[in-house]
Amino acid sequence: MANSFGHLFRITTWGESHGGGVGVIVDGCPPRLHLTEADIQPDLDRRRPGQSSIVTPRKEADAVQILSGTFQGKTLGTPISMWVKNEDIRPEAYSEMATKFRPSHADYTYVAKFGLRNWQGGGRTSARETIGRVAAGAIAKKILREQFGVEVLAYVKQVQKLEAAVDPEKVKFKEIEANIVRCPDAAMAVKMIRLIEKMRRAGDSVGGIIESVARGVPPGWGEPVFDRLEADLAKAMLSLPASKGFDIGSGFGGITLTGREHNDLFRMKAGKVRTLTNRSGGIQGGISNGETIYFRVAFKPVATVMHEQQTVDAAFQNTTLKGRGRHDPCVLPRAVPMVEAMSALVLVDHALRQKAQCG
Amino acid sequence: MANSFGHLFRITTWGESHGGGVGVIVDGCPPRLHLTEADIQPDLDRRRPGQSSIVTPRKEADAVQILSGTFQGKTLGTPISMWVKNEDIRPEAYSEMATKFRPSHADYTYVAKFGLRNWQGGGRTSARETIGRVAAGAIAKKILREQFGVEVLAYVKQVQKLEAAVDPEKVKFKEIEANIVRCPDAAMAVKMIRLIEKMRRAGDSVGGIIESVARGVPPGWGEPVFDRLEADLAKAMLSLPASKGFDIGSGFGGITLTGREHNDLFRMKAGKVRTLTNRSGGIQGGISNGETIYFRVAFKPVATVMHEQQTVDAAFQNTTLKGRGRHDPCVLPRAVPMVEAMSALVLVDHALRQKAQCG
Amino acid sequence: MANSFGHLFRITTWGESHGGGVGVIVDGCPPRLHLTEADIQPDLDRRRPGQSSIVTPRKEADAVQILSGTFQGKTLGTPISMWVKNEDIRPEAYSEMATKFRPSHADYTYVAKFGLRNWQGGGRTSARETIGRVAAGAIAKKILREQFGVEVLAYVKQVQKLEAAVDPEKVKFKEIEANIVRCPDAAMAVKMIRLIEKMRRAGDSVGGIIESVARGVPPGWGEPVFDRLEADLAKAMLSLPASKGFDIGSGFGGITLTGREHNDLFRMKAGKVRTLTNRSGGIQGGISNGETIYFRVAFKPVATVMHEQQTVDAAFQNTTLKGRGRHDPCVLPRAVPMVEAMSALVLVDHALRQKAQCG
Amino acid sequence: MANSFGHLFRITTWGESHGGGVGVIVDGCPPRLHLTEADIQPDLDRRRPGQSSIVTPRKEADAVQILSGTFQGKTLGTPISMWVKNEDIRPEAYSEMATKFRPSHADYTYVAKFGLRNWQGGGRTSARETIGRVAAGAIAKKILREQFGVEVLAYVKQVQKLEAAVDPEKVKFKEIEANIVRCPDAAMAVKMIRLIEKMRRAGDSVGGIIESVARGVPPGWGEPVFDRLEADLAKAMLSLPASKGFDIGSGFGGITLTGREHNDLFRMKAGKVRTLTNRSGGIQGGISNGETIYFRVAFKPVATVMHEQQTVDAAFQNTTLKGRGRHDPCVLPRAVPMVEAMSALVLVDHALRQKAQCG
Repeated sequence: MANSFGHLFRITTWGESHGGGVGVIVDGCPPRLHLTEADIQPDLDRRRPGQSSIVTPRKEADAVQILSGTFQGKTLGTPISMWVKNEDIRPEAYSEMATKFRPSHADYTYVAKFGLRNWQGGGRTSARETIGRVAAGAIAKKILREQFGVEVLAYVKQVQKLEAAVDPEKVKFKEIEANIVRCPDAAMAVKMIRLIEKMRRAGDSVGGIIESVARGVPPGWGEPVFDRLEADLAKAMLSLPASKGFDIGSGFGGITLTGREHNDLFRMKAGKVRTLTNRSGGIQGGISNGETIYFRVAFKPVATVMHEQQTVDAAFQNTTLKGRGRHDPCVLPRAVPMVEAMSALVLVDHALRQKAQCG
Repeated sequence: MANSFGHLFRITTWGESHGGGVGVIVDGCPPRLHLTEADIQPDLDRRRPGQSSIVTPRKEADAVQILSGTFQGKTLGTPISMWVKNEDIRPEAYSEMATKFRPSHADYTYVAKFGLRNWQGGGRTSARETIGRVAAGAIAKKILREQFGVEVLAYVKQVQKLEAAVDPEKVKFKEIEANIVRCPDAAMAVKMIRLIEKMRRAGDSVGGIIESVARGVPPGWGEPVFDRLEADLAKAMLSLPASKGFDIGSGFGGITLTGREHNDLFRMKAGKVRTLTNRSGGIQGGISNGETIYFRVAFKPVATVMHEQQTVDAAFQNTTLKGRGRHDPCVLPRAVPMVEAMSALVLVDHALRQKAQCG
Repeated sequence: MANSFGHLFRITTWGESHGGGVGVIVDGCPPRLHLTEADIQPDLDRRRPGQSSIVTPRKEADAVQILSGTFQGKTLGTPISMWVKNEDIRPEAYSEMATKFRPSHADYTYVAKFGLRNWQGGGRTSARETIGRVAAGAIAKKILREQFGVEVLAYVKQVQKLEAAVDPEKVKFKEIEANIVRCPDAAMAVKMIRLIEKMRRAGDSVGGIIESVARGVPPGWGEPVFDRLEADLAKAMLSLPASKGFDIGSGFGGITLTGREHNDLFRMKAGKVRTLTNRSGGIQGGISNGETIYFRVAFKPVATVMHEQQTVDAAFQNTTLKGRGRHDPCVLPRAVPMVEAMSALVLVDHALRQKAQCG
Repeated sequence: MANSFGHLFRITTWGESHGGGVGVIVDGCPPRLHLTEADIQPDLDRRRPGQSSIVTPRKEADAVQILSGTFQGKTLGTPISMWVKNEDIRPEAYSEMATKFRPSHADYTYVAKFGLRNWQGGGRTSARETIGRVAAGAIAKKILREQFGVEVLAYVKQVQKLEAAVDPEKVKFKEIEANIVRCPDAAMAVKMIRLIEKMRRAGDSVGGIIESVARGVPPGWGEPVFDRLEADLAKAMLSLPASKGFDIGSGFGGITLTGREHNDLFRMKAGKVRTLTNRSGGIQGGISNGETIYFRVAFKPVATVMHEQQTVDAAFQNTTLKGRGRHDPCVLPRAVPMVEAMSALVLVDHALRQKAQCG
């Protein structure tokens, strides 16, 4: 069950970096939704390597194929199986990885857990695994948009110390996609790109923060006490490779305020219960309150650097290892569609749960 | 299922603030564990209101009773049912809550979701719900300690802007319990207590950060790709009332480093694979690596303040509401055992999962 | 999770025969349902021992108490905790059971699995565990009746070789409850009671078949491929103590027909798709088709007999054991409400699942 | 989740009769198991159409491909994705099925539930869906055999009224596979084959009973109260297409005995607790007792017959339909590996659960 996510809109991903491919099964999708590969591919294109000068150069078309679950362009209500072949396979490029544990990667922990690992391209720990998530997330976003009027977005909020100014209430998709770093603050985007390119040249890497928003979520989604909406979002985000933190609304910053200052006061507005501020981040007591949901996810700098570093080998001897070949100086631009996907998967699952119990 | 947590060591909590009581069922506990109420009560005492001058004064003994699942002082392998009666019941004290939505509480969202709510003492959204978690967590901690040699601790790391200096590798339980704020940095604890008391006098409240550590976790716990150890910890923490953020290891702070600086280099030490630093926080690729696990949880300031604030009533009219009666200026001291409990519940669940698949 | 049943309407039972009591948590119940103990108790009264001359004489009022999940007589959407105290506790009556494995009971297998057992009154294997199921089932039946127009019934169809003639389309609750064996064929009921009383006098026991019907289930409930409606019913029934078989519609008897003879031909009737016969038992391809659902459950004769029989003791030595004290010559009359309850729990869970995906 | 089965050894099947293929994801498989397609294909060959004169003639090689989860011939502990392409695709052969509901098929109920269906070859309701189960079951059987010493077998016990004499304790795989009907009673097999061929000539069909045995299961597998071993077996069997009933041990036949006659008396034998008879079918109180597990599954006659029958069309008008093209006079020979697979999947799941809680 470790490779499944969601309760009613449930995905199961499979696949290693090198092997027959990667894919996902979506179980529980409502029937009669118009769906073809054309609904999925754009998000995979935003995720794939080689899309710009600031991401990893691996060459993959990542063309998705729907193998089941649709008929004459509509979902059947049966499992949707989606598959992307692995193409850029160069096992020989990874021969050193066969015998050495890359620092701050999962090579050692996979061996500690399973007793073996597929060392080619990182195997299951490769970011290729997120293809299945992004493909499933594209369906989730379509349902949210068409059936619930909910828009899910994500963007790069911060690269190292460069922080963008973005209004979660107003940011638009095309502003995000207007540059290769996916930061809607155009001026800051220029600086971010410059920093990432500098890191690429230095064979080093940087991390940062992605912010995600969901607008139009009606009051009532979220399932206390354990499946609070923010709890499921936190799990979703911390399940992404390289993520190290999550906070929502006022988050870690909110602790500098007193309760009196922090409270979101209720006021009626156009016949609806609204809050004057939104430090809650659109969720109170684990349930959406109708305000915009927004949260942040911290991503560490990519672990593979083009410098020699100390490590241990599979025979448990001290050694050194230097990254070579493809270099990804910053995961953030490609992580944007991943964050969007996981956010949408959480939301659509809760939309269905709300229908089931309270609909 | 929203009120259950865990897969193999699975808890289900029940109960409202006012009503027959609160409780928990623990399903999946290994048999033949020595267990009596004496193993549970100390943690409930650390959680209960009225334990010191800086927490809410509600008077509850919170005496736990084990109703099933043990026989002659040992667990049977059958569900363990634990129950705490509600005693300090004063529904009349909450009459204004019947008709008004408290700002930044869940009153409105519960009505939006369910169409009704138990307004007495917050009903299901009361922190009393966490009694079941803490009781179950006490069992989880005992299993971790006795069967796996794992110690789980939590402590107050920061109150508003007051940040304690604590070494996660060395901090001791008795240092934490040495003061009423549960901060092992004795000098900072004095300042924290002073700040909280000031808030109490002002009818206001403060939030902060709790840090938790788990020492002795062997390499191999955690279930990628979705049930990564940090993902389940994140969910556990964000399921706690008033929590707004989670980060692990270097967390949000780690993004200021480059990859080269951030990587934890492997070295053999006493025949074991170790890391020279621990920015990973004891988890790599979702799996424990044998280093100390440590993470932080942000808690917002308590929403109930003793001042009049704008809000909306159940008839959807603008109004005002002033908190009265019991006042809790800071949730942190009582949240410490909650964080510990949830952390232990995640870890023991993963310990059993590891046995199942790889044992 | 072994003590939970259902996905969206999820119950968790707890408790041993001797101890603090037995109970159940119902999670996922729709909010705003009128519910008090008066809705539950009648089914517990139909389940309890001592209700007639042909069932076990244990004296228990089995008075249920709702501890959480309702407010002012309505469900809150939060977990409903229900509890029944154990009263007729006579551990001394079971002293021989402490050291000997009763034949065809679960004494030995519990020790083999868990390494220990609560031997008082059978502990967790006692039929008292079904109190939680019956209490939860009463809620499920109420929802089915009030919100979906579905009626669930069960009755004794056969005792040993005595088989009743009952029309599943027409049988009424009051006909079932008209006699102590709960067989709506009045003439056959007399014979059945006579047989059971003869067995009681002989210190022996008999088994038989309970048939259950659900009328008014709309087309569309059931979740292929694994959670087919009949698959979940089969699991529900085989989870009851002493059950040994399940069949639906034409069942085991249907194999004597050819496909041509067996098929249920479709015809329009009053604007609805109907079948001319109902060998499918109201379910086709795992999904209800709008016809009456009916199935049968085989129960073995009660294992406790008042005769000396060979067995093995806890020290793994051959010995003998003679049942003494309370004697239950036939489990069927009390199993009727258990079958009803489990059937209703399956149906309401599928009703909610249907709403979630296709509603 | 409706397309997933199992808790710790969890499979998810996908695919329709006509479309990109059918497949399965196996999540939770222990690592380091030797596994290649050669371990899977033989069972698929036993399941595939066209294997003999008494089964449906559809031409499919059903060649399986492992797409993930193995490396250098061993399982990685990551999800195993297996895929079989659809080859014999003739949508035109099913044109009448597009507009008419086949009697006693799931055409109508799928439309009632989902509002549409893939009518080509039955879509998701085709027996092709069981390819994924059989493939996953082959892995389960290998684990049971190699790691637990458990052998799982199934065979045709009865065709219509022709009942075979088989000893569950002694029956061998090669006896089962010695004839095309998969009945180890050679004399009865001849009669069964003759009956099925007669049915084929008559354009009609017959059903029957498959019996399955599991030998070598140690005491202690099974998880009361809901996940009893027989309850999970019952669910597994009733989730198979065309199954109508399940009974275990003495089953429906056991009700003719009194308790005194029915009880399995314990005796020590070679240092082990054994029973003198095995009416319990190897399971007591939901937990294996070390004796051979055996149970029966009733399959109705195949619904597609080569005769004109009354039915209703998609416009809800009365009409008639005559089966044409491929004709499957008896599902039993091909259902044998399906029963084996589902049985093995239940057992291996419980083996892992036992390790987790009590190991």
